[in-house]
Amino acid sequence: MSLGPLFRPKSIALVGAAHTESKLGGVVLKNLLAFRGKVYPVNPKYDELMGVRTYRGVKDIPDPVDLALILRPANEVLQDVKDFSGRAQCIIIMSSGFAEIGEAALQEEVKRTAAERGIRLLGPNCMGVYNPHHRLDTLFLPRERLPRPKKGNVTLVSQSGAVLSCLLNAVDEAGTGIAKAIGYGNAIDIDEAELFDYLAGDRQTGVVVSYIESVGDGRKFVIAARRLADRKPLIVLKAGKGTSSQAAAYSHTGRLAGSYEVFRSILRQFGIREAEDFDVLMDATKSLAYQKGLRGKRVLVVTNGGGSGVLAVDECLRQGLEVVPLSGEKKERMKSHFPNFFSVNNPIDLTAQVIDQDYVTAMCELSDEYDGFLVIALPNVLGITEGLAGLLADCRRRVNKPLVCNIPPGGIGNKLTRLLERQKIPVYPSPERAVRGLKALLE
Amino acid sequence: MSLGPLFRPKSIALVGAAHTESKLGGVVLKNLLAFRGKVYPVNPKYDELMGVRTYRGVKDIPDPVDLALILRPANEVLQDVKDFSGRAQCIIIMSSGFAEIGEAALQEEVKRTAAERGIRLLGPNCMGVYNPHHRLDTLFLPRERLPRPKKGNVTLVSQSGAVLSCLLNAVDEAGTGIAKAIGYGNAIDIDEAELFDYLAGDRQTGVVVSYIESVGDGRKFVIAARRLADRKPLIVLKAGKGTSSQAAAYSHTGRLAGSYEVFRSILRQFGIREAEDFDVLMDATKSLAYQKGLRGKRVLVVTNGGGSGVLAVDECLRQGLEVVPLSGEKKERMKSHFPNFFSVNNPIDLTAQVIDQDYVTAMCELSDEYDGFLVIALPNVLGITEGLAGLLADCRRRVNKPLVCNIPPGGIGNKLTRLLERQKIPVYPSPERAVRGLKALLE
Repeated sequence: MSLGPLFRPKSIALVGAAHTESKLGGVVLKNLLAFRGKVYPVNPKYDELMGVRTYRGVKDIPDPVDLALILRPANEVLQDVKDFSGRAQCIIIMSSGFAEIGEAALQEEVKRTAAERGIRLLGPNCMGVYNPHHRLDTLFLPRERLPRPKKGNVTLVSQSGAVLSCLLNAVDEAGTGIAKAIGYGNAIDIDEAELFDYLAGDRQTGVVVSYIESVGDGRKFVIAARRLADRKPLIVLKAGKGTSSQAAAYSHTGRLAGSYEVFRSILRQFGIREAEDFDVLMDATKSLAYQKGLRGKRVLVVTNGGGSGVLAVDECLRQGLEVVPLSGEKKERMKSHFPNFFSVNNPIDLTAQVIDQDYVTAMCELSDEYDGFLVIALPNVLGITEGLAGLLADCRRRVNKPLVCNIPPGGIGNKLTRLLERQKIPVYPSPERAVRGLKALLE
Repeated sequence: MSLGPLFRPKSIALVGAAHTESKLGGVVLKNLLAFRGKVYPVNPKYDELMGVRTYRGVKDIPDPVDLALILRPANEVLQDVKDFSGRAQCIIIMSSGFAEIGEAALQEEVKRTAAERGIRLLGPNCMGVYNPHHRLDTLFLPRERLPRPKKGNVTLVSQSGAVLSCLLNAVDEAGTGIAKAIGYGNAIDIDEAELFDYLAGDRQTGVVVSYIESVGDGRKFVIAARRLADRKPLIVLKAGKGTSSQAAAYSHTGRLAGSYEVFRSILRQFGIREAEDFDVLMDATKSLAYQKGLRGKRVLVVTNGGGSGVLAVDECLRQGLEVVPLSGEKKERMKSHFPNFFSVNNPIDLTAQVIDQDYVTAMCELSDEYDGFLVIALPNVLGITEGLAGLLADCRRRVNKPLVCNIPPGGIGNKLTRLLERQKIPVYPSPERAVRGLKALLE
C-alpha cells in the first residue's frame, strides 16, 4: 500500500471523539471539521458531536474508511485495531502508554494484529499528520494555541510531537509554509525510511526536515535518506547524542538511540545535511525553502555596518566559505561608482551614508565574480527604505545566484523582512545566522 | 580626569548641528532636545536650530562645556579641537575619515593636539554615548529607526557603531534595558580599558557587553578586563578572528586585530567570558541581566514536550552542565504527585496533559538537589495558561536559584514571555538557547 490513505484520505474515522475542545478528542474533531471528505466520529455516548453524525462503536461505521485515528487509553487500542479489520486501510494511533513506558508487549501485539489484517499503522504515541494541501489536520493541539502555517514546500518529519509543534511554530514565524508535517512517534510500522521514500516523489515537498531520536533499521534508513537527498534537500536534527540524553529519548519513544558518532559519520559519508541544533535547523530550512544552488564557496558581503561585516566574515571562515577580495580592476571600477569614504573591499562597506541603490550597484557589478551574496542592511539610517526589498528582488532575478540578508528586527526591519521573504529572499536577524543560511545552500 | 563629563555632562556643544533630520547633525540635535542640561549647537549659517539658540563658531559659545560633539568632515576636525582649547573637557569625534581610510597622520595630530590641551577624546569614527539614566543620547541614528531601549543594567561597549546599533536593537527586543551604551571607534584616547575601569565602579551597570575588533595595549586591556570581571559579569565578542576578517576590521577602525588565538587564551586564563557569536552574546546578556549565581553544574529539566527535553539534555552535555538523574527516593516521591504517564526522570516530562502547577511541584520538591532549573513550556496545550508566569516567579523566589525558560513564540507564548521577563526570568525560543543562557550564569 502506498501512503496515500495517510496523506490524502477520502474518509476518516475518529475513535475517541469528544464534544469539547477541553478534551484532545474534541480538538481533533474540531480540526477535522475543515476536512473535505467524510468524517465518522466514534463515541459510545453520543449520536452527534459538533454537528457531525457520531457512531457508538467502530463496527457501527457504515462504510470502510481510508484513515482511522485512535485517541483512546492504551489498553483499549488493541480491540479498536481488531474492530477496524477490513474497515480501515491505515490507522494513526495517537495514544501513548506503549513501549515508551515499558509496555513493549502490548505494543508488539498491536503491531502484529494490524499486520495480520493488512492495516498500516502510524504511531503509537504520535501527533499524526498535517497536510494543508489536502485540508487534513489530525494534530491534537488547538489552532488558537498552535497557529497552523500556510501552504508551502517544507515537509516536517518528527518522531517527537512536541518538537513537531515547535517546528510548525518556527515555520509559521519564518513564514515559509508547510507541504506536510508528520509526527510518527514510536514508529512500529510506518517509519522515517518509508516516509522518506514517499516524500521523494511528493510534488508538494521541496525540503524535508527530519527530527530523529532513534532509528529502527539503520541500513533501511540510510538507503531511504540517501535516495531522498538525491532528489531534494534533507536536513536531519539528531537528538539523544549522549548517554543521559539517550536515556531521555528512550523513555520518550521506547527506541534506543544508538551511537551518535556512528550516525553522524554515516550522514556525512552519504552527504546528508545535519543541523547541530534547533536554531541552525530552522535557519537552514528557511534558506532551502526559498533558494537553491550555491555552486561554489566564493561569497561577497555588502554591508552598511562595518562591524557587522567583520562578524559575517568570521562566520564565513568558520563555515568554510571564502570571502575572496576584489581584483584590482574590479576594485577601481567599484570605487568609481561610490563616494570615497565607502570601503571597497570584501566586505564592501557602504557606511551610514548608504542609499538602497548602492547594494544593487555592488551586486550587479560583481555578479560574475562570486557564487553567493550576503546583504547586511541595518535600517537605522534614513538611506535605507522599504524600496530596498523590490530592488534586491529584481537584482537577484538578474544575477540568478543565492542571496541572503541580515536585517535586525525592530523599526522598519520587520517590514523589510516581510517584503523580502515574500520575494523568497531569506532574512536573518544576525550576520552569523545569515551566513549559516547561505552555507546551507551549498550543493 | 574621570569620565564623568563623557557620561554625565551638564553642558554639551554640537559642532555640525543641522536643521533637518535628513542630516546626521540634525538627528543628533533632535536627540539632544531631551537632554536636561545646556545645549550649544554650532553652525555658521544659523542663529537658531530646532528652537535652540545656535552659535556661528566654537569660539562664540559663551561658556565652557563639559562635552563637545564634532560631526564635521575629517579635514575640519583638527581646527575644531584647537578651538575647544580651554572650552571643553571631553570631545566625541564622530566623524570618520581617519586611520580607517589611511589618514593615520591626521589622526595622530588630532590626538596630540587634544592631549596638549588636556582635552579627553572619544573616537574618532564613533557613535558616542547613550545614557538613558542621564537623558544623554549622542547617537546619529533617528529614534524611529533605532528605538532606544528603556533603562536597565546592561552596558554596551562597542568599537563598531553598527554593532552597537545591533546590540541596542537586540537589548530592546529582549526587553532587558540599558545602563550605558558606548561606541568608541578608533579609540585614540579613551579606550576599552579606561571604559572598563569606569564601569567597574558604575552603580547603574550590572553587566558589561564588549564588542572588540582590536586592542591597542593588550596588557592594559587584560588588567582592566580582569578587574571589571571581578566586580561584575563581562562578556566579550571578539571579531576579526581570521586573516580576511582582520583585514576587514583594519579598514573599519584602523587598528590591527592581532592573533585571535592569543586573545582567546588570555581571556580564558583570566576567566573572562567570551561569546562565540552575536546570538550567543545576546542570549548570555539576557540571563546575566536578570539573574546570577549558578553555583554548580547540576541542572533539572522540567518539560511538557519529550523531544524538547532531549534537545535540552544534548545541549547541557555540550555545555558541560550535568543532567543528574533523580535519586530513587526522590523519584518515588515525585511519582506520588503525578499521573502515572508522566515520565519522572531528568528531564521530568509532564506530557501534553500538563497543568501549570506541575512545574512548581517538580521545582519545589527538588530545589535542594539541583543548582539550576530549565523549564520548557510549550503553550500549545490548554493546560498551560498565562498564570504559569506568576507561579514560576513565586517558585523562583522560594527556591532562590537560577531559572531559565524555553517557550516558543506565537500563540500565548509571546504573552507568557513578557510576563516572565517582567519578573526577571529569561525566556528563550529554543531549548538549546535556554541552556546556553543558563550556562552563562555559571560562576
